[in-house]
Amino acid sequence: MSAISPEAFNALTEEALPMASHYGFHAETIGDGTARVRAPFSDDYVRSGGTVSGPVMMALTDFSMYAALMGAIGEVALAVTTNLNINFLRRPAAVDVVADCNVIKLGKRLAVLEVTLYSEGDDAPIAHATGTYSIPPEAAR
Amino acid sequence: MSAISPEAFNALTEEALPMASHYGFHAETIGDGTARVRAPFSDDYVRSGGTVSGPVMMALTDFSMYAALMGAIGEVALAVTTNLNINFLRRPAAVDVVADCNVIKLGKRLAVLEVTLYSEGDDAPIAHATGTYSIPPEAAR
Amino acid sequence: MSAISPEAFNALTEEALPMASHYGFHAETIGDGTARVRAPFSDDYVRSGGTVSGPVMMALTDFSMYAALMGAIGEVALAVTTNLNINFLRRPAAVDVVADCNVIKLGKRLAVLEVTLYSEGDDAPIAHATGTYSIPPEAAR
Amino acid sequence: MSAISPEAFNALTEEALPMASHYGFHAETIGDGTARVRAPFSDDYVRSGGTVSGPVMMALTDFSMYAALMGAIGEVALAVTTNLNINFLRRPAAVDVVADCNVIKLGKRLAVLEVTLYSEGDDAPIAHATGTYSIPPEAAR
Repeated sequence: MSAISPEAFNALTEEALPMASHYGFHAETIGDGTARVRAPFSDDYVRSGGTVSGPVMMALTDFSMYAALMGAIGEVALAVTTNLNINFLRRPAAVDVVADCNVIKLGKRLAVLEVTLYSEGDDAPIAHATGTYSIPPEAAR
Repeated sequence: MSAISPEAFNALTEEALPMASHYGFHAETIGDGTARVRAPFSDDYVRSGGTVSGPVMMALTDFSMYAALMGAIGEVALAVTTNLNINFLRRPAAVDVVADCNVIKLGKRLAVLEVTLYSEGDDAPIAHATGTYSIPPEAAR
Repeated sequence: MSAISPEAFNALTEEALPMASHYGFHAETIGDGTARVRAPFSDDYVRSGGTVSGPVMMALTDFSMYAALMGAIGEVALAVTTNLNINFLRRPAAVDVVADCNVIKLGKRLAVLEVTLYSEGDDAPIAHATGTYSIPPEAAR
Repeated sequence: MSAISPEAFNALTEEALPMASHYGFHAETIGDGTARVRAPFSDDYVRSGGTVSGPVMMALTDFSMYAALMGAIGEVALAVTTNLNINFLRRPAAVDVVADCNVIKLGKRLAVLEVTLYSEGDDAPIAHATGTYSIPPEAAR
């Protein structure tokens, strides 16, 4: 069972994460250590050549990790990303970007997460990332 | 000598990189494989807790790499990031973020770059990143 | 279908990769862009505290990527690792280490691969890695 | 001032890190959060094509991080690598490999380190890495 609902997460991030809010990022599903999030396509994203820019994909990656972590341990405002590594695999299409995240290790002090990003409607991943969140001592479950 | 001036780079990115433009990112100096870029502080950046968010730092990192690479090989619209790895080191202050980038390897097909990010006026780095750009065949010098 | 058999791969690496050979690394299965490889447990590996050392896991990770890549494109002696990123997740047990690798993107010039490492007989991963191989021009399929 | 001498570190690793010992890795200088270490050239290292293999460079990278961290906080047997990211930049020559490491952030729970690797006698780096060590609670200074 998830420790936070998509609705609660989206409401929370609307205030706490202005960039995510500006770009319309939102969580669709959140489970216990998993999340699916979406970036609606917008001309604002587009870099030279008509594709979604790398920074938008990185921001969505971070957003998906925050959602999956909260799905595992609940609302932890002070959890912070300590490392993010992303490989860009294919040119994104001019459509929504969807990111699937899952926690691959939940420790007392660190969580390691994996994210795969897709262009809506295409199974071939456009990017793959791993990241680490530092969990404040009082929040570890 | 740089293959592009900061003015030309900034004009170019205003059109080509809407996110960078939205946040006011700009290059201050560009050399042959080096760049210093700046994100002016804005309340739009701020995440819960009053600090510059990770995604803004990642976007600025990518922006600095693009500037340093163009400083080395000139305007190459099709150069794309293939990998970016970032470590977040310290909580940023509520001031401008400055990023210093240098190319550590310029190959025919790949360039590897290193970036250090600072809060304006503080020597202790807030983040450190490395990244790889893929260079289209015709652009290699 | 795999472009190389485990037997051919193991014979090849016995000469070409002395460290892998020294530690008894071998491929058990190789598919089209996938590989399962094994490091037999040995006291030689052990670091302070009785666990398999990080460098052994990194060497096995690289070995598994080489196997999966050859499974996709055949014997390409000049393919080289350009980036490897590994997260160590759990303390390994004093048993064999098994690594499962799959190609997540096969391009003309670059391949991106993902590896999960396990202690024999335990489903909880001990490490997770991603890496990039550069493919020489003539070898791309 | 360093919290450990190269002699003490080398004696320690001879027992604790069998792979490092097998390959003759040793620290030449250790400062407060810095280290220079060396891998003597050996035919054992060589992969197809006559160069030092990636796994040897990764093992030396990890060894240099351990030395620099101990130079900062003293002998901490339970400090463990949690992440290592390495970019291979140039083909190494058939000579010793030297690695220079420095701590770029020393926190209570995590240390982030940067490593540059060279072929003896050549200023162009052959690899560049960053990594994170987890520091056990009682060992933080």
